[in-house]
Amino acid sequence: MRTKPQLTILGYNSAIPTINGIPSAQILEMGGKMMLIDCGEGTQVQLRKVGIKFSKISHIFISHLHGDHCFGLPGLIASYRLLGRVTPIEIYGPKGIEQMLETIFKLTGTTREFTINYHELQSSKSEIIYDDVLLKVETVPLDHRIYCNGYRFTEKKLPRSLNLEYLQSRADIPKELYHDILEGKDIVLLSGGLIPNHVAGMEGKKPKSYAYCSDTRFLPSIVPLVKGVDILYHESTFLHDLREMADYTGHSSAREAAIIAKDAEVGKLILGHFSNRYPDKSVFLDEAREIFPETYLPEALVPLEI
Amino acid sequence: MRTKPQLTILGYNSAIPTINGIPSAQILEMGGKMMLIDCGEGTQVQLRKVGIKFSKISHIFISHLHGDHCFGLPGLIASYRLLGRVTPIEIYGPKGIEQMLETIFKLTGTTREFTINYHELQSSKSEIIYDDVLLKVETVPLDHRIYCNGYRFTEKKLPRSLNLEYLQSRADIPKELYHDILEGKDIVLLSGGLIPNHVAGMEGKKPKSYAYCSDTRFLPSIVPLVKGVDILYHESTFLHDLREMADYTGHSSAREAAIIAKDAEVGKLILGHFSNRYPDKSVFLDEAREIFPETYLPEALVPLEI
Repeated sequence: MRTKPQLTILGYNSAIPTINGIPSAQILEMGGKMMLIDCGEGTQVQLRKVGIKFSKISHIFISHLHGDHCFGLPGLIASYRLLGRVTPIEIYGPKGIEQMLETIFKLTGTTREFTINYHELQSSKSEIIYDDVLLKVETVPLDHRIYCNGYRFTEKKLPRSLNLEYLQSRADIPKELYHDILEGKDIVLLSGGLIPNHVAGMEGKKPKSYAYCSDTRFLPSIVPLVKGVDILYHESTFLHDLREMADYTGHSSAREAAIIAKDAEVGKLILGHFSNRYPDKSVFLDEAREIFPETYLPEALVPLEI
Repeated sequence: MRTKPQLTILGYNSAIPTINGIPSAQILEMGGKMMLIDCGEGTQVQLRKVGIKFSKISHIFISHLHGDHCFGLPGLIASYRLLGRVTPIEIYGPKGIEQMLETIFKLTGTTREFTINYHELQSSKSEIIYDDVLLKVETVPLDHRIYCNGYRFTEKKLPRSLNLEYLQSRADIPKELYHDILEGKDIVLLSGGLIPNHVAGMEGKKPKSYAYCSDTRFLPSIVPLVKGVDILYHESTFLHDLREMADYTGHSSAREAAIIAKDAEVGKLILGHFSNRYPDKSVFLDEAREIFPETYLPEALVPLEI
């Protein structure tokens, strides 16, 4: 049973937690899985606010090991222990994430009854890191101060399905022909009548895709990797007048994020990871929309259908 | 300049952060210092809520290395770097705290321009770990599942001071006698008149004391260590009908906390670290007040004069 893919941004602050928001963390529901993308400090409380059960998360993807993207993780794992988790959890992240977490767990006496499967990344090239019948996840190597990956999540194309409402209204279509309908064939009845496939069957739903790119310098090489995604989340820590500062600190401007979105022909661009120096975030929107009109600000805790 | 000692409880949850509160963290202002006691996840946001500047904290005391008492610390230190801290910070905590933090900082690329002075504790006996002209801090060894200390903070007795209002109203008391007044002596005027010391001088202000005891099994051996403190914060994770569970998990009941408070003849007892199984915290108050009437529930983010 596939539900509609959905993104819930839990936090999009850069660096320091504030009263009104936490650093980077997102929940992506896609391909029958609930996935956590980055896990800044305070992620657990945000999950509680949106009513997401911690236990439903099966896969965690960490972009890089800066604290504002991973310091919520030790606490989440500790909570799993207290909540009695037994199902394994998959953690994807830069090489070193296992050493960091296991050192913490050892020193804090955080034992567990469940398995953590670490998938440590160190390639500078895009890799397929998860692949099943419903979903593919690929890394999007980014250019930050330390090793950092974005992630692209792509649904698999679903096969054609039966137009059951139509078929049940026609007593003269034997079930033996359903297989042909699913294969895309028109069907010929004993009476000689022809029923075109688009009437008896339905196109498999268009697969959706989402890409998360935080943190990174302006990096045109990611354009083919995020090409055509329905939604691209791309950091824009600064406005373009501070592009030298952005480059120095390994970040992008809103204008640069919009250039990536435009060149990659994505459906929508969501900005995030704003520097605290900008109290009014609409300045990012104004700058980016000059290049790519379908740009939006993130809205924390509000589920967004992809 | 000594300000009135003040306690601000930032969080008192046990274990898992909730929407309405964070795990253990407190700010104690005493002896001219701002000190952080424990640092659960979310401490930074609570500090922002009460308007405390991170930079003012000079000393951090961690009771033990369970996540709900220290998982906010890596993020706080990372913020210090971003905020440009240069003054050293003193961190007191169980042996292993340096390895844990430095492993995290190394793997997350968290460099710093300021010094962290680690004071690692491993004694099972009470020690004086800080001592200056205004303040003494002693460990209160607790009995938990892992090595754990409470802390007792005691102001030093201030010397006697001059009753300036009185002295300025008397032109016949030469300043040369002020030293005698400060030493507690009565003074004899040239006229032969005697001015008792309690008129010309004032008793040094009564020193205040505070003890923090979380997490621990019922441990009567702490009574002499927290004897007579103005305020005792003592955990009461459970009610007394679950005292076996409390003992098994290394915690206390409200009744047990009250027995400690009564035997130690403290001024006030504040309970905390409640298990999430109790939605209404007043049950703890009811149970403890049967033994020790001056018991109170913690109130997060509200400064309390000691």
